[in-house]
Amino acid sequence: MSEGMHHAEYSSFSSQDREEVLQTLIDSYSALSTDQDNWICNLSNASSLLWHAYRSLNVNVNWTGFYVTNVEDKELILGPFQGKVACQLIAFGRGVCGAAAESQETQLVKDVNKFPGHIACDGETKSEIVVPIVNEQGKTLGVIDLDCLDYEGFGEVDKKYLEELSRLIVKTCKF
Amino acid sequence: MSEGMHHAEYSSFSSQDREEVLQTLIDSYSALSTDQDNWICNLSNASSLLWHAYRSLNVNVNWTGFYVTNVEDKELILGPFQGKVACQLIAFGRGVCGAAAESQETQLVKDVNKFPGHIACDGETKSEIVVPIVNEQGKTLGVIDLDCLDYEGFGEVDKKYLEELSRLIVKTCKF
Repeated sequence: MSEGMHHAEYSSFSSQDREEVLQTLIDSYSALSTDQDNWICNLSNASSLLWHAYRSLNVNVNWTGFYVTNVEDKELILGPFQGKVACQLIAFGRGVCGAAAESQETQLVKDVNKFPGHIACDGETKSEIVVPIVNEQGKTLGVIDLDCLDYEGFGEVDKKYLEELSRLIVKTCKF
Repeated sequence: MSEGMHHAEYSSFSSQDREEVLQTLIDSYSALSTDQDNWICNLSNASSLLWHAYRSLNVNVNWTGFYVTNVEDKELILGPFQGKVACQLIAFGRGVCGAAAESQETQLVKDVNKFPGHIACDGETKSEIVVPIVNEQGKTLGVIDLDCLDYEGFGEVDKKYLEELSRLIVKTCKF
């Protein structure tokens, strides 16, 4: 961090170019996780970066954050996030988050109402992207979850950068 | 939770009476932490409740969340929050959070610039309240931290209810 800069300034994104903003998010996460491997600390700041990055792009995100694999396997438990109060527990395989956790594949959902077994923490959510966080041993550590108030809030560009963020989280955090 | 209610609805506060809204916050936290003792899950939802409760009262909070005592004692590490990216580590005794952690007394700061050794995570913050979370053995587990963009954002009513929330967190969470 530059001398005299406040941490809050990481939440300022000035471009309107989606790839540029998401690359800045990746770079900011890298800087913030240097010498810091506490996953709670790192994912708390990551959820803030995600919120402010997408809001700066005028994407109507209403939830940006994380679920992590509970001590009891095959279940996700709520982690750090920005947005409204959320469901605490999600079984692997249930809803969009559970599907990503179980399949270990990114779920890009243009209309959540068309997703079989969608769990609505917020009835206003229209679209969602969930990216699994998988360690080198092939275990699902958790998921990155973003909700949007509009249909088709996310696309391939988001998938690319959020998967990059997911890999960075595995590298930088001790779970 | 009532049947058919979404979790996100806990973030809706309809009154303009400060005591009533803060009592609702306490009640909502109690409901959400029933049968759930994971501190990360519970404090993530608590930070959302705090954000939406104060925003509904038109208090310009710019940060609502938690620092917790690090495995290395005498140091706070960033926990779940809502708002802009924040400082990761704060030594006991440093700044408003560190003072609350060390003294185990609530710090009600009407003007952060007049607080000796104030740590600015966000240069725009004008006032702050920090409430220690202390377990029954007298150990500081962490702090509740709220920042406001206006001077004198918080007062005795906030101190009363946030200290109640702090006691509830000790009762409901395994750290």
